[in-house]
Amino acid sequence: MTGRQRLSLFSLVLMTTITTVGFAILSRGPLRAGDADPKQKILEGMTLPEYDARGGLIRPEGYERWTFIGTSLGIRYLETNDPPPKGPGDFHHVFIQPQAYEYYLRFGEFPEKTLFVMTNCAASKKSGPDLINKHGHFAGKATGLEVSVKDTEKFSESWAYFLFTTAGERKPSRALPQNLCYDCHAEHGQADNVFTQFYGMLEQARESHLKTARP
Amino acid sequence: MTGRQRLSLFSLVLMTTITTVGFAILSRGPLRAGDADPKQKILEGMTLPEYDARGGLIRPEGYERWTFIGTSLGIRYLETNDPPPKGPGDFHHVFIQPQAYEYYLRFGEFPEKTLFVMTNCAASKKSGPDLINKHGHFAGKATGLEVSVKDTEKFSESWAYFLFTTAGERKPSRALPQNLCYDCHAEHGQADNVFTQFYGMLEQARESHLKTARP
Repeated sequence: MTGRQRLSLFSLVLMTTITTVGFAILSRGPLRAGDADPKQKILEGMTLPEYDARGGLIRPEGYERWTFIGTSLGIRYLETNDPPPKGPGDFHHVFIQPQAYEYYLRFGEFPEKTLFVMTNCAASKKSGPDLINKHGHFAGKATGLEVSVKDTEKFSESWAYFLFTTAGERKPSRALPQNLCYDCHAEHGQADNVFTQFYGMLEQARESHLKTARP
Repeated sequence: MTGRQRLSLFSLVLMTTITTVGFAILSRGPLRAGDADPKQKILEGMTLPEYDARGGLIRPEGYERWTFIGTSLGIRYLETNDPPPKGPGDFHHVFIQPQAYEYYLRFGEFPEKTLFVMTNCAASKKSGPDLINKHGHFAGKATGLEVSVKDTEKFSESWAYFLFTTAGERKPSRALPQNLCYDCHAEHGQADNVFTQFYGMLEQARESHLKTARP
């Protein structure tokens, strides 16, 4: 082998190596800001709250596939001397972004941009000749949506509350006045304005976190 | 440039190209059996039912993160002349594997290995001095689990029904006798033994599928 041939062979091997290593790096995809930070990493891909130009919340989409955290039927926050409500009331189903749920399990706190979506569903009976439920109620179609958002960049009190009155309401919702939702959540929410006491899955996570958390 | 130099340069370019293209193909990851079949592809990664040596179903794990499809409170399938149950009864929450849900949305049928997990949660009131709910009930901790499985390889009737009586029951569950669950599901289930009529999300998907389905 001549010196020139050796040089060519060396160039060939070198170029091939550079190309291969280059491709190996590129094929991992771009480096992400969250790679180094477990708190950021767990939030990758989370649906974020979106607002219109006037600060109204745009109706969240796809929450049916988020993590479901609990239900209630006919919950009302009335004074006890008020007349009891007629009928069973509505079912409430509450969903949170899967990433915010995992974050809460791991770190015991709700991350910025947490969204809770609560659907209101009429309680249905449907007891007919070919229907089998003789007692009780099940949740019918959703009639509205309530949303809470943790977004300290947008709201000085961190949390804000929004209402979409009908099932298909597309109009962005303005934040509700502080005395309608925020004050009660701040006073009675067990953890960071959230009624974790009503949601078995969160309550359990909170208790387990309180037990095992180390400074 | 000599002929030998030209040949070396050609070899270099050729090797680099081969390596680059090779890497580009490899970086797509291995070909999967499901790549060609959309019905298989949609099911990738789905949690499958697991059985012990005697055919008992092993308690499904992680269903809290599956797709939630509906709730009921106090549903009972008693004859109307039976005395009404005392108290509100239990909340039932029903979950399905996310892949089986997407499959149902897309193809209007439940795939083999579909699992429905229903949790039973006591209805709680918790009306105390620092608690704010004056009316209604919310779902407390899960007290048991009911599971239905579509698995024609295992069960000649396709669907089988299982019960885990306590929250932490680890013992595999034997399929319940046909007259306890199967018969009623077969007679009254709106779609393939499933009570889609009680689950808004499935009922909506079913109606929309029936409207748009083309042969």
